[in-house]
Amino acid sequence: MANLKQFLMIPGPTQVPENVALQGAHGMINHRSADFKKVFESVIAGVKELYLTKNDLFIFNSSGTGALEAAVSNIVGPGDKVVGVSIGNFGERFQKIAKAFGGEVIPLDFAWGTAADPKKLKEILDADTKKEIKAVLMTQNETSTGVVNDIKALAEVVRAHGALIVVDAVSGLLAEPLKVDEWGLDIVASGSQKAFMVPPGLGILSVSAKAWKVIETTKRHCYYFDLLQWKKFAPNGETPWTPALSLFFQMDEALKMLRAEGIDKILARHQLLKKAARSAARALGFGLLAEDDKCASPAVTAIVPPAEVDAEALRKLCRTKYGVTLAGGQGKLAGKIFRISHLGYIDQLDIISAFAAIEMAMSELGQKVVLGSSVKAIQEVLLKG
Amino acid sequence: MANLKQFLMIPGPTQVPENVALQGAHGMINHRSADFKKVFESVIAGVKELYLTKNDLFIFNSSGTGALEAAVSNIVGPGDKVVGVSIGNFGERFQKIAKAFGGEVIPLDFAWGTAADPKKLKEILDADTKKEIKAVLMTQNETSTGVVNDIKALAEVVRAHGALIVVDAVSGLLAEPLKVDEWGLDIVASGSQKAFMVPPGLGILSVSAKAWKVIETTKRHCYYFDLLQWKKFAPNGETPWTPALSLFFQMDEALKMLRAEGIDKILARHQLLKKAARSAARALGFGLLAEDDKCASPAVTAIVPPAEVDAEALRKLCRTKYGVTLAGGQGKLAGKIFRISHLGYIDQLDIISAFAAIEMAMSELGQKVVLGSSVKAIQEVLLKG
Repeated sequence: MANLKQFLMIPGPTQVPENVALQGAHGMINHRSADFKKVFESVIAGVKELYLTKNDLFIFNSSGTGALEAAVSNIVGPGDKVVGVSIGNFGERFQKIAKAFGGEVIPLDFAWGTAADPKKLKEILDADTKKEIKAVLMTQNETSTGVVNDIKALAEVVRAHGALIVVDAVSGLLAEPLKVDEWGLDIVASGSQKAFMVPPGLGILSVSAKAWKVIETTKRHCYYFDLLQWKKFAPNGETPWTPALSLFFQMDEALKMLRAEGIDKILARHQLLKKAARSAARALGFGLLAEDDKCASPAVTAIVPPAEVDAEALRKLCRTKYGVTLAGGQGKLAGKIFRISHLGYIDQLDIISAFAAIEMAMSELGQKVVLGSSVKAIQEVLLKG
Repeated sequence: MANLKQFLMIPGPTQVPENVALQGAHGMINHRSADFKKVFESVIAGVKELYLTKNDLFIFNSSGTGALEAAVSNIVGPGDKVVGVSIGNFGERFQKIAKAFGGEVIPLDFAWGTAADPKKLKEILDADTKKEIKAVLMTQNETSTGVVNDIKALAEVVRAHGALIVVDAVSGLLAEPLKVDEWGLDIVASGSQKAFMVPPGLGILSVSAKAWKVIETTKRHCYYFDLLQWKKFAPNGETPWTPALSLFFQMDEALKMLRAEGIDKILARHQLLKKAARSAARALGFGLLAEDDKCASPAVTAIVPPAEVDAEALRKLCRTKYGVTLAGGQGKLAGKIFRISHLGYIDQLDIISAFAAIEMAMSELGQKVVLGSSVKAIQEVLLKG
């Protein structure tokens, strides 16, 4: 069915509001001009407001992974020691990036589906009496498992040690609270294609005064993401290399919507949809990879279908017959789970539509399903608010 | 005048045709799906056709500089020797990138406004009897000076030595002939925002079989641009990190236009506008930074106004009064020259409009100008064809 209405329910790229989408058709302007400076400054100010930070902030032409590389390659040179906290696929990626740039990575891995334990991090940092550890890399929202880390608690432990706190907030920002300045987060990465409701292509990074000192003194291998270059151009409302103008125009439009909504309402909307999705999954007898509600992600819910159901067959049926695109499992979870996103421009009725489709697909796969049962569970959550 | 019609005459971002621009408003899709695979494969095939290559080809979320970094950081590790041929600002950038990744750069610099001499390159390579030089970095079209190098001749010299031939074709591709396979060019970088007529944000790179051998054996520092990762995902129609989907949709649309036009006509159109711009500049008594017509750029013409005319004042008047945006001088040429682009979606009448504005601006700056004289010069070139 070529004209099937599409419900994109993956944790990035997320759906883009029509007014934001249309800005992608904007004509080109000189990127070294007062006209671009206006857009640049408006976008930087808007993102800083949502980051809750007064730190410097940069926007690269890159995916979220590019922003992670910028976060790491500016502070990690050959032989530098860092701790990489991992609770899933993206935690592992952060460790790999540090290794790629010559870093000596101390891995702190937790079981997929659980959150990081600040006490374990404290043990490692306490043992580092020579203060050789330069930074701790951590993921706010692990998209692969649907688990959020307690960044506030982890950051507190790192602050006591003195290392830099480097956070991958790509998929978690604006879904789960993140207080960059209040919690003393030194480097925080995100991307356009998540809660910002903009197509992929912009990587975002905030940098604290403490981080600048490390950047200025680290012998390192980077150029495209060399923050010292970016810092030189920013005061003129410029980027060192040609910016992705059309995405900047879209970001500017999306920020208008997000700033008008306000951070509290944005966070509350994600929390509500998280509750709705988890309640729906439970009503259908599905397992939840993040069993603990407290560490469950407000961006994406990772669902474990009954053993006799092939997660990939379920996803395929939802997509081909109902236009509902769900995400699959990543890394070692491939084929074992499916994930439903409630990140960004996803509406309460989108969640209902998605689960209605999942119910019908389950029924078609020969499973006993009480039709409407997950929809009812969602409605109850929504009515309670 | 807020509603002044705009004529963007800079060598990137270039103007974007309306049908291409509108694709920027395309809705999001899953980037790991058959739907994206179709777009991905269509774009890769289209770019390969215009690159005249059967080599592997990759498209990053990055500016052109990101593609240059990908070209260098995959083959240059700490201590590796490369020659960096420079005839201007972008040649210098190529050298800087190689240094940033630990490379030992042998600079081969020529006066700004002139092209590289293949004989000088031959001397350096002939002296390298131990074959320590791994690669030669060269710029096809030096945007800062409006000069093109004779890549065919330079490549011939490098092929005799055996080092990799690495070409920055960001601003030159499709304006000046570049035969990637016929000339044995190992790594060739370009970007979306030049002759491709697409907004900035996509970096492009072709990689030869010979280059793969070097990539596979080089100890190097890269992750986001690590070509071995990109190579793994490409057969599935995927990129390792989330691609800039809206720019891919735009690229697909632009490629339809470019393939329909055909490479010969695309090149001829750029050559004709080059002649027109040079003829117009001469009619007004301006100097040309690239004095030799043979090495003059078909992408951008760098013009030296009379000593008593402030290039920046002239640019400002053209912009504010006539909506014509010209480029300024870069690096050591800042304030001394201005540049007019004829790259990408620039029409023959755009060149006439721009010079008509320049004539009026010159007159307003108190210069003696025969009004219409440069327009006439352009018309004569166009009528001759």
